[in-house]
Amino acid sequence: MTAPDAVPLSVVDSWWRAANYLSVGQIYLLDNPLLKRPLKVDDIKPRLLGHWGTTPALNFIYAHLNKLIVERSSNVIYIAGPGHGGPGVVANAWLDGTYSELFPQVSQNGEGMRRLFRQFSFPGGIPSHAAPETPGSINEGGELGYSLVHAYGAALDNPELITACVIGDGEAETATLATSWHLNKFLSPMTDGAVLPILNLNGYKIANPTVLARIPEHELESLFIGYGYSPRIVAGGFDGEDPMAVHQRFADTMAQAFDDIATIQRQARSGGETARAAWPMVILKTPKGWTGPKVVDGLPVENTWRAHQVPLAGVRDNPEHLAQLQEWLMSYRPGELFDVHGKPVAELAPARPAGELRMSANPHANGGLLRKALTLPALEPVAVDLTPGDGPSGPGTGAEGRGAVAEPTKVLGSWLRDLIRLNPETFRIFGPDEVASNRLSDVYEVTAKEWQGEVLETDENLSHDGRVIEILSENLAQGLLEGYLLTGRHGLFTSYEAFIHVVDSMFNQYAKWLESSAKVEWRRPVSSFTYLLSSHVWRQDHNGFSHQDPGFLDHVVNKQSSVVRVYLPPDANTLLVTAEHCLASRDYVNVIVAGKQPTASLLSLEEARTHGARGLSVWEWAGTERAGQEPDVVVAAAGDVPTVEAMAAVQILKKEIPDLAVRFVNVVDLMRLQEQTEHPHGLDAASFDAVFTTDKPVMFAFHGYPSLIHRLTYRRTNHSNIHVRGFKEMGTTTTPFDMLMLNDLDRFRLVMDVIRRVPRLSTAYAGLSQKMDDERAAHRAYTRAHGEDAPDVVGSAGLVFASEEDVEAA
Amino acid sequence: MTAPDAVPLSVVDSWWRAANYLSVGQIYLLDNPLLKRPLKVDDIKPRLLGHWGTTPALNFIYAHLNKLIVERSSNVIYIAGPGHGGPGVVANAWLDGTYSELFPQVSQNGEGMRRLFRQFSFPGGIPSHAAPETPGSINEGGELGYSLVHAYGAALDNPELITACVIGDGEAETATLATSWHLNKFLSPMTDGAVLPILNLNGYKIANPTVLARIPEHELESLFIGYGYSPRIVAGGFDGEDPMAVHQRFADTMAQAFDDIATIQRQARSGGETARAAWPMVILKTPKGWTGPKVVDGLPVENTWRAHQVPLAGVRDNPEHLAQLQEWLMSYRPGELFDVHGKPVAELAPARPAGELRMSANPHANGGLLRKALTLPALEPVAVDLTPGDGPSGPGTGAEGRGAVAEPTKVLGSWLRDLIRLNPETFRIFGPDEVASNRLSDVYEVTAKEWQGEVLETDENLSHDGRVIEILSENLAQGLLEGYLLTGRHGLFTSYEAFIHVVDSMFNQYAKWLESSAKVEWRRPVSSFTYLLSSHVWRQDHNGFSHQDPGFLDHVVNKQSSVVRVYLPPDANTLLVTAEHCLASRDYVNVIVAGKQPTASLLSLEEARTHGARGLSVWEWAGTERAGQEPDVVVAAAGDVPTVEAMAAVQILKKEIPDLAVRFVNVVDLMRLQEQTEHPHGLDAASFDAVFTTDKPVMFAFHGYPSLIHRLTYRRTNHSNIHVRGFKEMGTTTTPFDMLMLNDLDRFRLVMDVIRRVPRLSTAYAGLSQKMDDERAAHRAYTRAHGEDAPDVVGSAGLVFASEEDVEAA
Ligand SMILES: Cc1ncc(C[n+]2csc(CCOP(=O)(O)OP(=O)(O)O)c2C)c(N)n1
Ligand SMILES: Cc1ncc(C[n+]2csc(CCOP(=O)(O)OP(=O)(O)O)c2C)c(N)n1
Ligand SMILES: [Mg+2]
Ligand SMILES: [Mg+2]
Repeated sequence: MTAPDAVPLSVVDSWWRAANYLSVGQIYLLDNPLLKRPLKVDDIKPRLLGHWGTTPALNFIYAHLNKLIVERSSNVIYIAGPGHGGPGVVANAWLDGTYSELFPQVSQNGEGMRRLFRQFSFPGGIPSHAAPETPGSINEGGELGYSLVHAYGAALDNPELITACVIGDGEAETATLATSWHLNKFLSPMTDGAVLPILNLNGYKIANPTVLARIPEHELESLFIGYGYSPRIVAGGFDGEDPMAVHQRFADTMAQAFDDIATIQRQARSGGETARAAWPMVILKTPKGWTGPKVVDGLPVENTWRAHQVPLAGVRDNPEHLAQLQEWLMSYRPGELFDVHGKPVAELAPARPAGELRMSANPHANGGLLRKALTLPALEPVAVDLTPGDGPSGPGTGAEGRGAVAEPTKVLGSWLRDLIRLNPETFRIFGPDEVASNRLSDVYEVTAKEWQGEVLETDENLSHDGRVIEILSENLAQGLLEGYLLTGRHGLFTSYEAFIHVVDSMFNQYAKWLESSAKVEWRRPVSSFTYLLSSHVWRQDHNGFSHQDPGFLDHVVNKQSSVVRVYLPPDANTLLVTAEHCLASRDYVNVIVAGKQPTASLLSLEEARTHGARGLSVWEWAGTERAGQEPDVVVAAAGDVPTVEAMAAVQILKKEIPDLAVRFVNVVDLMRLQEQTEHPHGLDAASFDAVFTTDKPVMFAFHGYPSLIHRLTYRRTNHSNIHVRGFKEMGTTTTPFDMLMLNDLDRFRLVMDVIRRVPRLSTAYAGLSQKMDDERAAHRAYTRAHGEDAPDVVGSAGLVFASEEDVEAA
Repeated sequence: MTAPDAVPLSVVDSWWRAANYLSVGQIYLLDNPLLKRPLKVDDIKPRLLGHWGTTPALNFIYAHLNKLIVERSSNVIYIAGPGHGGPGVVANAWLDGTYSELFPQVSQNGEGMRRLFRQFSFPGGIPSHAAPETPGSINEGGELGYSLVHAYGAALDNPELITACVIGDGEAETATLATSWHLNKFLSPMTDGAVLPILNLNGYKIANPTVLARIPEHELESLFIGYGYSPRIVAGGFDGEDPMAVHQRFADTMAQAFDDIATIQRQARSGGETARAAWPMVILKTPKGWTGPKVVDGLPVENTWRAHQVPLAGVRDNPEHLAQLQEWLMSYRPGELFDVHGKPVAELAPARPAGELRMSANPHANGGLLRKALTLPALEPVAVDLTPGDGPSGPGTGAEGRGAVAEPTKVLGSWLRDLIRLNPETFRIFGPDEVASNRLSDVYEVTAKEWQGEVLETDENLSHDGRVIEILSENLAQGLLEGYLLTGRHGLFTSYEAFIHVVDSMFNQYAKWLESSAKVEWRRPVSSFTYLLSSHVWRQDHNGFSHQDPGFLDHVVNKQSSVVRVYLPPDANTLLVTAEHCLASRDYVNVIVAGKQPTASLLSLEEARTHGARGLSVWEWAGTERAGQEPDVVVAAAGDVPTVEAMAAVQILKKEIPDLAVRFVNVVDLMRLQEQTEHPHGLDAASFDAVFTTDKPVMFAFHGYPSLIHRLTYRRTNHSNIHVRGFKEMGTTTTPFDMLMLNDLDRFRLVMDVIRRVPRLSTAYAGLSQKMDDERAAHRAYTRAHGEDAPDVVGSAGLVFASEEDVEAA
């Protein structure tokens, strides 16, 4: 292949002017797209909505990247941090030709341009931000702060890719963005691609100057050197400077940056260099609203915060504004850019990369196109064996039978180890320094933690190509996985349950991304985002109240039911089955809450498979009902700790009230509780009523806030009989059983609840109820005296599980 | 006053050893606190819970700050970023004497020491983190990342205060911490105090090295120079270095830092210097777990991640560990530190500041002690006047009567202006660049935005002592206000409704702080944290789906009802009344959701006062019921947009079904809906049933997700008849009315709902229902054709409000 000619800067400038013209057109015009006649009021949109200020720099950078791609056949995706400059990104996709390929009615001609303009921020049209609807985008431009972490997520394991990431100087003030710069310590020049951050220092945000624009240049440079980059500043466009001069400086700087990236990668890949490189980053200082109106109504607009949204706001009422708009549009010399039919002129072609090299058509930005399903290892080798006698792992390993104690997340860790072995380049685990704490350390048998910083002799499990990325920021873990999934790969985010709220907002935006993507025909499904929340509310023995919060589930279920799934596996085998299901799924957000502490294994792998498929099951072996008869009461549980506690309550009831028929129900897929019309997993009314009865009391022991169960079941026939115990925001540093008592979720309270709610028991068993209360008092006193729980209430200690035959029969 | 003598470093060292001894004791010992006999297994706690690794550096810094305070009478509070080192902070408070003053049973003797040890992380005892229970703390140590922003919030308007803030190097990776460094651009050396950040580079977090510990020193220095500080590095304690040498270096560095702070302040306050200063910050590099066991079971512990929690985990089972613990404790030479009765020896006294200068007793860290109520300006001058005829602002100003259009947040802005005028040093507004966008700009008539960065001629409303702080980070706005309130002042956080989820987790922790504080007798009430959420879900015309999320309310109501309050004022006057109430309140989190767009003013100020006091009211004038008769249907609304829409529906019903008796209910205080037993604002059952009936259909038009209303009312008698319309996660960039239709919250749908739910209407008015459906289709088509809403459905256009007499009569 011969090197293509350099793209002349005059063409880059034309492209830029064309994109600017098309951007302004989108913000203002209903009709008359080519200005074939002078603008009239009727040509103007009634609602002027959009963000001009950020747009010219987005277009400028896009045009220059095109030049580089054409010249070098580089593989680049474009991330627009201030993605509220939506018209810019869309304009470029249209100039690329991609837009018309994906949306044929928005063709590359006058009528297509009219539609392009009209649809923007128009009812039934397209959003004003870079969004799933925007070709080439993997970053929603609405909520600011996530561009750079998305860029890093996309670059992982894509050694040929450059993710060019434009960052707003306002955006740079957000918390997530401020810590994202440090991700260069987790990017391998050998096996990952490159991230090229381009900070657009346009000086302003909505109504204020930005911090980074108002510090001395030496501080600015220091900051990025301190973050580990090699910063280069290009300033231009001020005081009427000729854009051609700015083109020249920026082109040189960008070419140098691309060269430096190539050098860094070559040195690392040829095995020579192992020290962390100072990757290039570019600071582009341009006036906000560059090339737009300089002064409006006597006030400066270009290069001030006033350029943020719509600089000429009165175009329909104010003839002067209308004239200014006409002048502004004409300043781009559209006659040189589009032919009489509205098609971009051939002179622009040299700045247009071919096919999938167009940033708007790059398949990495529509990751489903590239996604390959994971190879899932078998569960059997790692599952907890409940068959009595000898198990597959050797003589005696299966001897415990039902109730064998295991640490669910540890068992999962073994399976994840096998998974990583089978998928060494497409699966990653992200966490805020909690992978080991959440007991997934078995993965370190086959991989390590990615680490480009200094390594000491005492360090363990650090390497330059680890599949685990840990940095103490839930935001970064979340954003990296988002970027990784949206570019067609797979992964898992593991966090403490309480602190996952740190990313509530990022979850929101990601769920919305999936919700919107589902309506965009050309977007291909991506792997689901799976959360593994451990170190959960019931086992924060040493961390106390700040670490006790199961509310993420409540947050999640607000999003469209088409995208959210919530699982509460009660034991290790069910966790395995759940994880397998989640990691094979697409286009969902899966939330799995699972314990890391030793707990009884309640289901064999086969049983777990059936249970997982059902989502909720009656466990005959754990209840006391008799086939063919209605139960007196239903005891239901969701979550590992509540399940054991509810089983303990049933065992007390069995002993004390032998003729009581208790049905035991376990819920692993929380969405089964909702109506079928509300969630695709919802149980139909008849099935729900069959399990939960239409008139018997239901005592529900729940992992989270009780209101969630009510919220999911309030339309069910028997709802008024459903009584829920769960976390009621009572917490402290105390023993596990004391935590249960504090929240009235302990076995004794559950027995009291049953006595109270089953009519024939309430007075007949007042004595038992009183005894239960005494038990509570005694067990509390025990903790105060001994600092730990009495042995009889430690987890499943002393519980009688069904016989061996039962396990085989089930 | 003569300058006190310098505190000898030997005393500082003794203090440090004493604090370390007391910290280890808390983690391990049940008894035998003074080691009067060799340690036995029974002396050891059964559950070993706590964090050793961070503790020695926390103690080290505390001791040195004590020295400086004694020598200079400085006013210092101490913020422990890695507050999971709770035993350290508590140990120092005990040495200070404060602990025993506040908790007399934990006296300064052997028995008190035994209790001190025993209570730590013990059932019924104290949390393992710095917490509300910890004297001198305003920062919860559980969820990491907020120390520095709290430090800055505390320093504002406290010109004599130094907030010394220890930051963990792991903590420094969190998003909020990473952007907090930039807060030096918002701190006035003239009118604010100083923040002295001390980064403890102990090299590790839970299971990993930290980023900042593994970059070259020149990068580290560059980073903090870039953040605008003057960094000083002290490294010591490695390879067995004598601590006395480290004391010397650290003491010198800290003295220099205090000197530099004094110089910066003097120069600014004498009027000379206006350029932003490079405030000092200190980087203290010490081994994690310094002075603890070096090797345990053959593995290095000190100066590795293994020192994070409990270095000797097997003390009860492993005699070697027990011996090592004994040795470790003895290495502090307790015999030199405590007398035979367990009292700290007199030799420590020179390092103990007096009275309120003790950091554990500093009243700034128990802000309620210092809090003075705000002077609240009158509402009348700014309220929307609904009296017909001439209003107080001049002839004709009151002529519109009920329905006069106003922008609620703009009206509030005028009142906030008056409030700032009356409280120029104790009230601040914090926002992520949205104060103007949320239309509070009237405040700039009396103040400006704090800004220590460069100022240009074109800038507006920036000053060196503005009462508004804007930086594009919801986390910083939240954290600053927290720090400001906890030190006894007042404020408001204003944000877009959707993006407030960015701080879900910080809200959580703050609510938990309040929940816990309520149980701490010596903590005095602080002003409530008040959110003003505007630019809400229903009016994101130009921003679209990413900006449409009312779920913060759901998140908030999970917290204890004793601390959360939620208000949805339907108009400007009710917003005023609500804000007045919230800003006078204490120890709550208030969430106010209010629109900024022009909307009908529905209540006179007097009516709004009554409505606000009631929390929810029947508005007879808006309904069609007849006194003395049961209504056929209740139409209820909460939120400004739903209220107008529900009123429009009632007006259609009035015209089309004249004999239908509709009761109109408006809810401003959402917590009124909950049962009295669940929330202190909850309406008693009889009152609720009187308003909402026990058997009539209730159509509820709600601002947020419908499930929240169900969740609040599921125990109410008439719950099965409550039908809620609200946001159901359908959104895009479209017109306001189209948004309502997308979510079935529009007037036409509400009319259809009433027809469907009132038995006698459902078949009789099938035609009207069909007509309503046609209206929806026609109105949607109108938006697609014109790009805006048909004039008849724009807000309250065309609605007939009650007559003039009605306003006077009400
Ligand atoms: C998390 C978040 N908070 C607030 C906003 C509201 N907002 C929209 S644009 C903007 C200013 C962005 O400034 P900058 O990043 O510099 O972009 P520019 O338009 O200058 O290119 C703000 C604060 C937002 N979109 N996201
Ligand atoms: C937001 C958040 N995420 C995760 C954790 C879990 N966690 C507790 S301590 C810790 C490590 C802290 O390291 P560092 O700040 O360096 O403190 P130190 O080394 O002094 O213990 C982590 C990740 C947390 N407390 N908060
Ligand atoms: Mg900007
Ligand atoms: Mg550390």
